[in-house]
Amino acid sequence: MEKRPFIIDCDTGTDDAIAILAALYSPEVEVKAITSVNGNICERYVCRNNRNLTALLGKNVPVARGAVRPLLSGFVNEGHLDDTHGPTGFGTIQLPEAEQVFDPRVASELIYETAVEEKGALELLVIGPMTNIALALVQHGDLAGLIRHIWFMGGAAVGGNVTPTAEFNIWVDPEAAKIVIGSGIPMTMVGLDVTTKAIMTREDADALRACGTPAGQVAADLLAYMFTRNHSGGEDALMHDALAFAAAVCPDCLTCRDCFVDVETHGQCAYGHTFVDQRGRTGKPANVSVALEVDVSMFRKWLVDTICRSAGEK
Amino acid sequence: MEKRPFIIDCDTGTDDAIAILAALYSPEVEVKAITSVNGNICERYVCRNNRNLTALLGKNVPVARGAVRPLLSGFVNEGHLDDTHGPTGFGTIQLPEAEQVFDPRVASELIYETAVEEKGALELLVIGPMTNIALALVQHGDLAGLIRHIWFMGGAAVGGNVTPTAEFNIWVDPEAAKIVIGSGIPMTMVGLDVTTKAIMTREDADALRACGTPAGQVAADLLAYMFTRNHSGGEDALMHDALAFAAAVCPDCLTCRDCFVDVETHGQCAYGHTFVDQRGRTGKPANVSVALEVDVSMFRKWLVDTICRSAGEK
Amino acid sequence: MEKRPFIIDCDTGTDDAIAILAALYSPEVEVKAITSVNGNICERYVCRNNRNLTALLGKNVPVARGAVRPLLSGFVNEGHLDDTHGPTGFGTIQLPEAEQVFDPRVASELIYETAVEEKGALELLVIGPMTNIALALVQHGDLAGLIRHIWFMGGAAVGGNVTPTAEFNIWVDPEAAKIVIGSGIPMTMVGLDVTTKAIMTREDADALRACGTPAGQVAADLLAYMFTRNHSGGEDALMHDALAFAAAVCPDCLTCRDCFVDVETHGQCAYGHTFVDQRGRTGKPANVSVALEVDVSMFRKWLVDTICRSAGEK
Amino acid sequence: MEKRPFIIDCDTGTDDAIAILAALYSPEVEVKAITSVNGNICERYVCRNNRNLTALLGKNVPVARGAVRPLLSGFVNEGHLDDTHGPTGFGTIQLPEAEQVFDPRVASELIYETAVEEKGALELLVIGPMTNIALALVQHGDLAGLIRHIWFMGGAAVGGNVTPTAEFNIWVDPEAAKIVIGSGIPMTMVGLDVTTKAIMTREDADALRACGTPAGQVAADLLAYMFTRNHSGGEDALMHDALAFAAAVCPDCLTCRDCFVDVETHGQCAYGHTFVDQRGRTGKPANVSVALEVDVSMFRKWLVDTICRSAGEK
Repeated sequence: MEKRPFIIDCDTGTDDAIAILAALYSPEVEVKAITSVNGNICERYVCRNNRNLTALLGKNVPVARGAVRPLLSGFVNEGHLDDTHGPTGFGTIQLPEAEQVFDPRVASELIYETAVEEKGALELLVIGPMTNIALALVQHGDLAGLIRHIWFMGGAAVGGNVTPTAEFNIWVDPEAAKIVIGSGIPMTMVGLDVTTKAIMTREDADALRACGTPAGQVAADLLAYMFTRNHSGGEDALMHDALAFAAAVCPDCLTCRDCFVDVETHGQCAYGHTFVDQRGRTGKPANVSVALEVDVSMFRKWLVDTICRSAGEK
Repeated sequence: MEKRPFIIDCDTGTDDAIAILAALYSPEVEVKAITSVNGNICERYVCRNNRNLTALLGKNVPVARGAVRPLLSGFVNEGHLDDTHGPTGFGTIQLPEAEQVFDPRVASELIYETAVEEKGALELLVIGPMTNIALALVQHGDLAGLIRHIWFMGGAAVGGNVTPTAEFNIWVDPEAAKIVIGSGIPMTMVGLDVTTKAIMTREDADALRACGTPAGQVAADLLAYMFTRNHSGGEDALMHDALAFAAAVCPDCLTCRDCFVDVETHGQCAYGHTFVDQRGRTGKPANVSVALEVDVSMFRKWLVDTICRSAGEK
Repeated sequence: MEKRPFIIDCDTGTDDAIAILAALYSPEVEVKAITSVNGNICERYVCRNNRNLTALLGKNVPVARGAVRPLLSGFVNEGHLDDTHGPTGFGTIQLPEAEQVFDPRVASELIYETAVEEKGALELLVIGPMTNIALALVQHGDLAGLIRHIWFMGGAAVGGNVTPTAEFNIWVDPEAAKIVIGSGIPMTMVGLDVTTKAIMTREDADALRACGTPAGQVAADLLAYMFTRNHSGGEDALMHDALAFAAAVCPDCLTCRDCFVDVETHGQCAYGHTFVDQRGRTGKPANVSVALEVDVSMFRKWLVDTICRSAGEK
Repeated sequence: MEKRPFIIDCDTGTDDAIAILAALYSPEVEVKAITSVNGNICERYVCRNNRNLTALLGKNVPVARGAVRPLLSGFVNEGHLDDTHGPTGFGTIQLPEAEQVFDPRVASELIYETAVEEKGALELLVIGPMTNIALALVQHGDLAGLIRHIWFMGGAAVGGNVTPTAEFNIWVDPEAAKIVIGSGIPMTMVGLDVTTKAIMTREDADALRACGTPAGQVAADLLAYMFTRNHSGGEDALMHDALAFAAAVCPDCLTCRDCFVDVETHGQCAYGHTFVDQRGRTGKPANVSVALEVDVSMFRKWLVDTICRSAGEK
């Protein structure tokens, strides 16, 4: 079976890292590259985290640098937003500093060139702000026709987390999200409607550690850190980004509906809002498949199994 | 006991009429006037409905004409929006045409003058777009300090009904809503979060008819019409506007939270959105008490009992 | 000859006062009322200035109070904007406090009722922010068809005075201006393009004083005050508002072009900008006659002659 | 003397071509690269025009492809905007098709890498929409500190050409312009205030042709074409883009003032407006040197002399 080629565009980040682990060990997927973007943490830490993680696992995947700021919102993460992701972006985990150099290409160019090489088969897992993808679309008129699917973590059919009506990834760069969502590329949105239910527990952490691989151990360590950040004191953690990858390879985890989606870039209080027309009130054609329900048990099992698959590697 | 003075500002409208009935027969309330506004139906039908209803019930309440259009949104209801409220705005019910003339004052002036007379005790039940109140506030600098409380049906902490993020009353005149909500007047918002649960059934209709008064009969007839408009085919109807009045006189029906609320007047897709900061993310001080939960049984009982209280009248 | 009925809606204000003088002594015009609005100075001073001025001249013209604030811009003049109009709004001139009471009607209602009485002949001279007119249009669906013409001082085809792209009267209440300019009423805009050239000099002041009437003396006193506010030190003063009245009764003073005009209410830096499409680039039909050139000599002569016409009165 | 390193970012385009000619033959300047952008004409013609022009002149300058669309405005030039630039973008002139291949780097990356190589000395002549520069700034946090100066044709302190308040280059991509103008890079704006006076005549065309070089001949041919597009029938043509280059190397041609400049990206009618605060009304610090007056004779002489300098080449 031919593997599905993916690029992961991310702002790693604790739960980004777990999504990367899942992608690296999914048998049906080949990660062609990992690209970095300003978001959860500063881009110059994001790229280092991506490089150190792949190096630790002995995965020879190109890692590229990407946008250091959003187009217009002004949100540049110089440190780490409200400590969610810890001092290194990997919680308190210090990965060994890898020797590997970054890909010479900037994220948007690497994405474009890979899309050309893959002749229309490339899929994108976008789990940070959408700046890099937007830049690539503005530079290359043929790119939209070369991407098979975008799976993104972002937005919400209802509510928000940074503001009452805006989710972080979209709020950081609403203009980029508007460009991407308006591109015509087939895409699936995995937003707060489902990701706030995608919980991993102590039991999952134990299972990951028990598989005895470096990947399992990193995942378990990340979960352990995330438990300490849990505001309600419980030993559980939200897997926002990994759920977006689940949409791609474990589609039964999620129930989706085709909706017209837009992003508010002009509002005074609703700036960064994802407008999701679940009931067709606007009369506009659907452009996004929006995940509205999640089978959490199936997701958890899939995620542990996938990361532990690394046990089969030498 | 002194009665609480109220003005009802409305776009009657089937469920507006039921709210008016409840107010007219609430023992703790005196309805000082009813004012009309463009909304569910054209203002020139609204005022006639208000006049004919009060005349039918033998209630000598001043009825005034009000704004025929919103400030800027452009929504002027020349007919009846998507048939919800039927050809007369009272469904298919033809009330006798009353002789009574309208109050010579325009709504905004009547509201202001009554507020001055009541020396700070006046409360407003606002169950249509907020145009009249906004106009009065712009014309009279001392008005905000003279209104004890505004109870309004409108908005939503989550979702919408005209668009995915805008509720009808606010969407018709977002700029007016922004003026009113920013006025500093104490106010309670009864939005879709609770009104979409405030259901009256066939059983309630039967109880209303059984009380044998004109008010009970009108209410029962209105419910019967509303059942025919129920898209899911059931014999139940939503009491959006009556629930806003319940907030004023049967406060145990609702659970409210003090929130910062704003209205989006600049957005491209989120125009008319009510921004409700339930978790204090903006850091702005609360300006509205927002109803978030409803005890439907208590509400139904209260509403039937109140309208049937008219049985005690000669 | 039948006189043309006018209402003057103003924020008096030094140059507003000179426009009022011109209107009161123009033989072809009858001033039906003067209405007050927040703008150059606080509305509660504006109405007093209007009343005291008409009382001083023995003119029995109804004076009404009007909007104390704009719809949404937030600009409420509690004092006097940057001293242009002096501590009383009449410079340092203390008019005797008149006994006359204000008209019981609010400005918007007085305007509407007068328009009905005049059966379509009423003209408006609008020389402050347009709040009152906007309120009247929102309240009365038939008003637009009852106004013969609006002559307004405001806006600019090019440039601004409060911001680089916004003129004061429009900037104070852009939303009101958008309502009025979009109303379909025939109207003439006299903006900064011409008013910044409408200069009166020491020579004009002397001529006004020489005519020996109270009107001439007040006008001369106002000019004398305005000379002291001239930033360039010269003895001349701009007659913004009187020029708008000249458009109505001395049309040869001005060269106008029919243009599509709109007001920017959503911009971040261009809020309050009057968008004047002189060359038909938008393809939208013209809705305003825009004054683009002025014959200053003719204007000055007309203004002195008009105010001095009061010499013929007892 | 060390030559000043420049990159020309353009949408060639007739008057772009003349600016390129001037830059290529200015003794104090070295053109490091020419980058292409969607604007006057479609980007895939722009890059060909740039390549064919340099090839014809025997200039070995890298030519790169750039953004094929703006960020959000939606204006993509598939053909040639209202025929100003003719079927080839060079009027009706058919340049020989060159063999030269495009630089492998996309415009934004070529700009960044050159800026790094030039260690802070690089200047940009930006004579089309600013998309490429904006993309480079979003991707590279250190770029703003590496550009010595941007000289751009765009905007207007007063007026517009596409709309009454927006100039073409800014209007095509207002969001990009906002990113660039807000970047802190020292820059000079050469807008319609001066470029609509920068006229070349038949006499200039004759002088260019007389110098007998390929550059002179191309320039003369372009002028001849432009004369045919002159709506007033005269034999003269506007040198918008060449004037922006004159600002860099013949500064006495222009009188500039330091102003705060912003771009309206949210307005309804003023979208794409350049807000130029000539009189410091906003109180914000100046960020752009804005050309307000031009010495046309000096400019014409400089332009003819510069292009004819190519006569000295073999």
